[in-house]
Amino acid sequence: MFGLRTFANSEIGMVKISGENCIGNQRSAMGNVQFRTFNPVSNKENDWIFCEATVEEINEAAVLSSQAFKFYRNTPPAERANFLDTIADEMEALGNDLLIVFCTESGLSESRARAERARTIFQLRSFAGLLRGNDWKRTSIDVAEPNRTPSPKTRLTKTLIPLGPVVVFGASNFPFAYSTAGGDTASALAAGCTVIVKSHPMHAGTGELVGSAIIKAAIKTGMPNGVFSNLNSKGIEVGVHLVKHPMIKAVGFTGSIQGGRALFDLANQRAEPIPVFAEMGSVNPVVISPLSLIRKAEFWAGRYADSMTQSAGQFCTNPGIIFVPESSELDLFSQLLTEKLEVIENQSMLHPSIFATYSKKKEEVLTEKSVELISEKRSEKENYMGHVLARTSGAQFLENTNLHKEVFGVFSLMVTYKDEVELTKIIEQMEGQLTGTIIVEPEEMPTFNSVIEVLKYRVGRIIFNGVPTGVEVCPSMHHGGPYPASTDARFTAVGTDAIYRWLRPISFQNFPDDFDIES
Amino acid sequence: MFGLRTFANSEIGMVKISGENCIGNQRSAMGNVQFRTFNPVSNKENDWIFCEATVEEINEAAVLSSQAFKFYRNTPPAERANFLDTIADEMEALGNDLLIVFCTESGLSESRARAERARTIFQLRSFAGLLRGNDWKRTSIDVAEPNRTPSPKTRLTKTLIPLGPVVVFGASNFPFAYSTAGGDTASALAAGCTVIVKSHPMHAGTGELVGSAIIKAAIKTGMPNGVFSNLNSKGIEVGVHLVKHPMIKAVGFTGSIQGGRALFDLANQRAEPIPVFAEMGSVNPVVISPLSLIRKAEFWAGRYADSMTQSAGQFCTNPGIIFVPESSELDLFSQLLTEKLEVIENQSMLHPSIFATYSKKKEEVLTEKSVELISEKRSEKENYMGHVLARTSGAQFLENTNLHKEVFGVFSLMVTYKDEVELTKIIEQMEGQLTGTIIVEPEEMPTFNSVIEVLKYRVGRIIFNGVPTGVEVCPSMHHGGPYPASTDARFTAVGTDAIYRWLRPISFQNFPDDFDIES
Repeated sequence: MFGLRTFANSEIGMVKISGENCIGNQRSAMGNVQFRTFNPVSNKENDWIFCEATVEEINEAAVLSSQAFKFYRNTPPAERANFLDTIADEMEALGNDLLIVFCTESGLSESRARAERARTIFQLRSFAGLLRGNDWKRTSIDVAEPNRTPSPKTRLTKTLIPLGPVVVFGASNFPFAYSTAGGDTASALAAGCTVIVKSHPMHAGTGELVGSAIIKAAIKTGMPNGVFSNLNSKGIEVGVHLVKHPMIKAVGFTGSIQGGRALFDLANQRAEPIPVFAEMGSVNPVVISPLSLIRKAEFWAGRYADSMTQSAGQFCTNPGIIFVPESSELDLFSQLLTEKLEVIENQSMLHPSIFATYSKKKEEVLTEKSVELISEKRSEKENYMGHVLARTSGAQFLENTNLHKEVFGVFSLMVTYKDEVELTKIIEQMEGQLTGTIIVEPEEMPTFNSVIEVLKYRVGRIIFNGVPTGVEVCPSMHHGGPYPASTDARFTAVGTDAIYRWLRPISFQNFPDDFDIES
Repeated sequence: MFGLRTFANSEIGMVKISGENCIGNQRSAMGNVQFRTFNPVSNKENDWIFCEATVEEINEAAVLSSQAFKFYRNTPPAERANFLDTIADEMEALGNDLLIVFCTESGLSESRARAERARTIFQLRSFAGLLRGNDWKRTSIDVAEPNRTPSPKTRLTKTLIPLGPVVVFGASNFPFAYSTAGGDTASALAAGCTVIVKSHPMHAGTGELVGSAIIKAAIKTGMPNGVFSNLNSKGIEVGVHLVKHPMIKAVGFTGSIQGGRALFDLANQRAEPIPVFAEMGSVNPVVISPLSLIRKAEFWAGRYADSMTQSAGQFCTNPGIIFVPESSELDLFSQLLTEKLEVIENQSMLHPSIFATYSKKKEEVLTEKSVELISEKRSEKENYMGHVLARTSGAQFLENTNLHKEVFGVFSLMVTYKDEVELTKIIEQMEGQLTGTIIVEPEEMPTFNSVIEVLKYRVGRIIFNGVPTGVEVCPSMHHGGPYPASTDARFTAVGTDAIYRWLRPISFQNFPDDFDIES
């Protein structure tokens, strides 16, 4: 489905990767912990060797980031916009090399690489566009009322200023869009924060190339040395050290609940706690109504199967649970969904460790007594999967929270519901989700309004007659949600409002009219 | 200065206080832990007896709050505006009784009681006004682009929804404005959140009366039972239990760093962490320039003395540190400030325990070798204080962070600075603050711009040629600041933007045009 193409070894061998860290504009490789990335398609380690950042290098990057912040925070927004646009240009200029490394380190297809690169570039340019407007600072002015009684009112102006150096954790499942120059980095740089990326070990080469594009753009547009650093990590130590570093003022993370929560806890235990925006796990429940099954079973089976299998189910908005009415159409729908899934080609997962976790977690669900396997397709090839579709009842689902957990990969649990009363009860008991989807026919709306109402309070985005995958990058997108979908439901990771994670208000009281609060 | 008046015992005796908790509209007093409030002016316990909420009562309040939330969250904003206005009306209707209890439980003057009541009512009406407008929801619409390539864009609408039941901790130093119907409660109710107040033990009677006004208003305007509860507490247990309760979704607190941090930690350790907005300690540094001392020493000594002594120094924006240039005018300024302070009447602190902490903390600073006592006025009367003014050098201040700590009460440390380079270094080393003030003459601005620049990144509000006390309630106010001024610098406790602490975005994707996302 994605125009699969495997790059030749000769092509891969032509791409130069140094394996070094970037501490600002300086390359550095002081440590002796080395690692390689892995090609899950060929099931082999890649040749490039990476050098994990040492404690000294981490400290150096933090100090440099903090120094650069003192200059960068005062750059005019239009200059930051140019910087972001230039990052986009430099990413494009990396051409085929970048696509080759992306695919070689992730097992994702070339078309996915192209689409994700386009998305990442669009994100960078979106924030550049935002900065060229005037609305994003939410500037508020209260004029002075010197004659007010009982006491005069002094002039107050409120604007936003950046928090300080931000650490961004690369995400395994989005080597471009939520990693080195992804949404977190773009929004933090737009806000006026300097950024240190803790590169994801699974795609350190992709990170190095994208990082080099950012450094080039920084130099070209005259940004201070240290506005961006990229640190390699094999294990968790580099990230832990960064989050605990007193000069770091905020953290952006996309990944597992376990990982995000660990960083959140570390950040909150600091002498000076700092905000962590972690976008974490989600099963993205989809509700399908009785009439939808009767009228459009085949259509929705097709849409659902496509959504469920996109990028081997490794999207944060991948649907993992589908609520289906107990009805005579149920077996037909199961069959249709199975048929749709069967014809989708097997896909490799991002890494053997991710494949192993998938295999373990889906087995855990399948060994639950109340769960019936509907359909499974396995692959002979290492790291490859087809799909798993299983079924349980609403009553069992209510009793057993093990069934609520995310299985990262192409896995869905069909949960049958008796009526909207049971469905409402189930949704109320679920954990926070990035998305919730409701598939209904118009005349069922009066019945399903109560379901929508409870779903609203469990999710960050609610989709009507659609599927959860496909996260539009636009001002009206909210990509977040109640815990554990994210660590703070009040902020979004996608769309231009993501900038507000890294800004805070400040009021200027009684300043002279000619004082420029923006400089 | 505040029109001091002591109420007669006969007047006090007329005020009826039941000592019961309010669990929604129901009075309840199941426990056997009892306590009384204290009159620091007469140095005696008050007669009223309060019953601490039991674990059962706390649970009952949480369940009721959660049930009420399901209805309250869908009340039209205009109805919530009426509710808030009616709370203001009912507070006014309590008349003299409310002022008597306020003064009797706090030792604050009648004029302060009147001013704080006016402020509290203004806050309630401000949020009512906000709700009657359309801007506060920050609604964003992305129209559909069905013909977009490579993939169509679906319609997205983003709005804000309330988080859920909020726990508000009454503040010792603002029995009206930051307690029962204060800024936290008003903003949370405005947002559509239900509220449980953990009443402050020092002014439980004030809390009961104000709570009764809220309940009356809730009944009059048809709000669901449980939209508001008021729980008495003698110790920390009630608050701890509330913050850990799974049905509670956010916390508002004003008070000490120790107290705020403890709640923040508890909330973050929950299985489902919840946001805690704690507005905590601050020394609110004031910088005075060389020319200001030369030209306006007497004027600024007077303004500073007034600000420093307001309500016995028990304001969160009370100035605790004043940076003064090493110059020949220094001794004259010290003398002028001392003279201004000497003529201000002694005042009682809120409670013997607060007076004891003040006495201990100011002694700790005064016993530091580098600190010289400039002037102190003590009182013979229990719980009463005059002032303490001490002095140290910038070099000593840089070395000894004990000198940076807040002494809650009428206490200021003058810190002499050599030049703006030393001053900048000092400010950079200080912890986060609610406010920073800069007093300069126009021709000094080029020199002091660098000081303003570093101050910006340590404070939530920066005041030009003024004093930090006097927190205007208006849209452009930011009352918060980097830790430990608050637990999240991105939100404010004062002004209409305080509502955003209790709201989160949600996106509606592909919904039919006639679907009302606001209901």
